[in-house]
Amino acid sequence: MLIRIALVSSLVLTVLLSASIVSAADPLPSWRDGATKERLLGFVEQVTDPASAQFIEPEDRIATFDNDGTLWSEQPMYFQLFFILDRVQDLAADHPEWQELEPFASVLKGNIASALKGGEAAMLTLMEATSTGMSVSDFQQQVNDWISTARHPTTGRAFTQMVYAPMLEALEYLRAHDFKTYIVSGGGKDFMRPWTETVYGIPPEQVIGSTVKTELRYEQGKPVIYRLPAIDFIDDKEGKPLGIHNHIGRRPVIAFGNSDGDLAMLQWTAAGEGARLPVYIHHTDAEREWAYDRESSIGHFDRGLDIAQDEDWLLVDMKRDWSAIYPEAAE
Amino acid sequence: MLIRIALVSSLVLTVLLSASIVSAADPLPSWRDGATKERLLGFVEQVTDPASAQFIEPEDRIATFDNDGTLWSEQPMYFQLFFILDRVQDLAADHPEWQELEPFASVLKGNIASALKGGEAAMLTLMEATSTGMSVSDFQQQVNDWISTARHPTTGRAFTQMVYAPMLEALEYLRAHDFKTYIVSGGGKDFMRPWTETVYGIPPEQVIGSTVKTELRYEQGKPVIYRLPAIDFIDDKEGKPLGIHNHIGRRPVIAFGNSDGDLAMLQWTAAGEGARLPVYIHHTDAEREWAYDRESSIGHFDRGLDIAQDEDWLLVDMKRDWSAIYPEAAE
Repeated sequence: MLIRIALVSSLVLTVLLSASIVSAADPLPSWRDGATKERLLGFVEQVTDPASAQFIEPEDRIATFDNDGTLWSEQPMYFQLFFILDRVQDLAADHPEWQELEPFASVLKGNIASALKGGEAAMLTLMEATSTGMSVSDFQQQVNDWISTARHPTTGRAFTQMVYAPMLEALEYLRAHDFKTYIVSGGGKDFMRPWTETVYGIPPEQVIGSTVKTELRYEQGKPVIYRLPAIDFIDDKEGKPLGIHNHIGRRPVIAFGNSDGDLAMLQWTAAGEGARLPVYIHHTDAEREWAYDRESSIGHFDRGLDIAQDEDWLLVDMKRDWSAIYPEAAE
Repeated sequence: MLIRIALVSSLVLTVLLSASIVSAADPLPSWRDGATKERLLGFVEQVTDPASAQFIEPEDRIATFDNDGTLWSEQPMYFQLFFILDRVQDLAADHPEWQELEPFASVLKGNIASALKGGEAAMLTLMEATSTGMSVSDFQQQVNDWISTARHPTTGRAFTQMVYAPMLEALEYLRAHDFKTYIVSGGGKDFMRPWTETVYGIPPEQVIGSTVKTELRYEQGKPVIYRLPAIDFIDDKEGKPLGIHNHIGRRPVIAFGNSDGDLAMLQWTAAGEGARLPVYIHHTDAEREWAYDRESSIGHFDRGLDIAQDEDWLLVDMKRDWSAIYPEAAE
């Protein structure tokens, strides 16, 4: 028994030693020193300190992240749209009628602006034509094939190399403090799941996104899940708190967004009891990334910006607060 | 440095000592020794042994459990229905029209069989009248109040004391082997979440169930999630694999059910690559619980029973395989 106690004490000591080593290193090296970084670190330290009045139990430590414009770039258009447009090209030979039919005809002529004049309805038409009518596993294979080869038209980077290095650090830092990290995106859930674990360390069961209706079919006696050409749920705006409730059933302690599409999620977070931190990433860096807010249709950030200032939410200025934008190129 | 190494070695030793203590004890004391218990233990040992060809990585260890009839009893009717009927009584004073209106009139006269003659449609009417039109948090408070006081009419037990002791052990055993345990139930997601963490050790984000549509409303500027009187998703039969895909995005390695309502989930599990174990709990113990299968409307178990036998799935015989049914009464 005495031996056992001695072993346990040295275990405790080892843990304490490791903890002090971890806290000595900067967990957010791509965040510049200043008020923003200080507030983020201070909040996490406070809610994870058992001696603090603001302490939150590990099981309640939920952190949610918008994806487009918050974890990776979203200009000149949502990256999922590049996938959809590439799929239109791939499938055109099987659809001769697309040569005359909008929005497909414009896409095939390379006139994307004209194809997207129809707004959300046009995007939905393109999504349904390219991303439904197959099994979930076939769709995810197509996504995998695409994401491992496609390149962004202006940066030349793989799309998964256009994730934000400071946000990868924030994800890791929160997980090291026992936060469960979730994506809550207007993008397609099954479009994100094939790569979020590798790229963000976020497993498929922690990805909340928009979905199409599905159906169970039996092929040679085996069940297969099919994607149907009909929207099931749009995980955007007021949909975000609903998606969070449906999927998690707990309110986030900290939530990150970058546009008015994230406003309801941040308000839902802020309205919780106890310590909560709504965070907005403000795209202010035209040189290293893009600068846009109130006037932009992609990542429109107007009412959210006013409310963030009025309510003193944490407003991250990319140009001022981030010393790096993307990870060092892996090429 | 030497000190550090010594500490780490004693940490390793402590872990090894603890592991050997754990493995020496029987992890399933309420399961009688025999082929069923042996197969369950053997399967878990095999898929968690890194030296085995059947080894499954920890992140892929998904275990799903039906609730009614699999984790707790479901006779003489689903326990959620007791809640709904009690709510009809509570709300009757505000609804004088219910005195004449079916199925409410029969419920208020205490004639449940007559109230339920309308089948699923009658149940849905009762559910919508009692369980929607309020905020999610108000609803969960009502569930909490009810479940902490209501008693089963024949056993006199609290409903949460009618969970199966052998299944609580199976949940714990699987989690000790790094399985993530999920409920996948036809019952209401928000009806289960308030108590599954305490009773089963299953947190709200791992509860998949049927849902009603929800809506975000603003009350005094604060967002509130409202339950609307319309079904959103029925997590039963073919809905179970769809709910699993939508929520988890991985296929279960092991799945437990007890009725034809679980058949699609078990087939979906069995159709995965590598080692998979579909498990059916067969209600065979009229003395300690209930005995029912092919002829029962609650927990109807007919086609699933045939397929389980044909495909050699694990068929648990409650009477033969379980030495205890319920936990020792806490009263």
